[in-house]
Amino acid sequence: MSLSTRETILKVGRELVFHQGFNNTGIQEVLNLAGVPKGSFYFYFDSKEDFGLELVDGFGDYIFKKAGRFLTDEKLTPLNRLKNYFTWFFNGFEKNKFNGGCPMGNLSLEMGDLNHKFQEKLGDFFGRLKTLLAECLDQAKVTHEIPDSIDSSEMADFIISAWEGALLQMKAKKDNTSRRVFEHIVFDRLLNNAIYIETTA
Amino acid sequence: MSLSTRETILKVGRELVFHQGFNNTGIQEVLNLAGVPKGSFYFYFDSKEDFGLELVDGFGDYIFKKAGRFLTDEKLTPLNRLKNYFTWFFNGFEKNKFNGGCPMGNLSLEMGDLNHKFQEKLGDFFGRLKTLLAECLDQAKVTHEIPDSIDSSEMADFIISAWEGALLQMKAKKDNTSRRVFEHIVFDRLLNNAIYIETTA
Repeated sequence: MSLSTRETILKVGRELVFHQGFNNTGIQEVLNLAGVPKGSFYFYFDSKEDFGLELVDGFGDYIFKKAGRFLTDEKLTPLNRLKNYFTWFFNGFEKNKFNGGCPMGNLSLEMGDLNHKFQEKLGDFFGRLKTLLAECLDQAKVTHEIPDSIDSSEMADFIISAWEGALLQMKAKKDNTSRRVFEHIVFDRLLNNAIYIETTA
Repeated sequence: MSLSTRETILKVGRELVFHQGFNNTGIQEVLNLAGVPKGSFYFYFDSKEDFGLELVDGFGDYIFKKAGRFLTDEKLTPLNRLKNYFTWFFNGFEKNKFNGGCPMGNLSLEMGDLNHKFQEKLGDFFGRLKTLLAECLDQAKVTHEIPDSIDSSEMADFIISAWEGALLQMKAKKDNTSRRVFEHIVFDRLLNNAIYIETTA
């Protein structure tokens, strides 16, 4: 019973923070929507900060669960797993009319300078995501889908930047141009075996 | 006198909103810091929204003034103008210990879903920035610094995504890895004449 109320508060909190930001979301608003009596918040959480840090963990867990499933899908080749992951994410974003985006990206720009505990969790998230993508790129080298010369860790960092920035531009413009550009340049150029040769210089 | 008070309020507002967000900045806080008597805000602005939209214009004007100066610097080749612009921006960000970043990127994630007037201004900004970068890329084709086969408009959109995303990751991680990766992949790979050849397929 107690656990379920706590989970309800977190679920409503994730929804509100995802769509309107952490500082812009009041505890009272969360409790009202969760149908939880006023004043019971501090029974479940030490502080709004403590609550927010649990939301960050929840967003991270969700993304890793999804990314993990897509990036280890044995029915597809490694490169197609990667494409499939971004397709799933972009499709959801388009379906939501370019609202929302990546909660961890949103919170990085909102909280990265304001709260060290948030910043550490967000930084760790991007580090772990980079490792996951780099492993998939390593596997795509084994299957000869991408050039061996690519530094997987560096490319993973760059793809995350290009992806977060594409979501940001799409959120500002409310159109899918930056998605199409991302897909074309990342998959047809940067990761394409055929399109370029390395010089020895 | 009246104009100067108004300008002071805007200047303080830009500083606060840049570092802590729009929703997280109260009008009273702005007036206190500006040393302006309580209650005088609505003499200068119709609403907090109206004030915020002027801040967005101010950020955009500043960036375009700087970008315009760097990207038309006749002492440098077009590609070096582009490099110089990003170097200037990244250096400032590093000097600020990865605090702040791009105010238009920050506001896009904060306000892109919450206020249509903000969203339109932010979307327009990225459209105009893309045009400016694409013009510089076109000039770099004339000087044979980048491959003719590059679609300048598409590449400009992609570079903005990669750049905004690099700032986002740096803000979360508080290190310059994503800057180095951006510089290497954008300038040594994507825009490098020598490193790849186009297939005719």
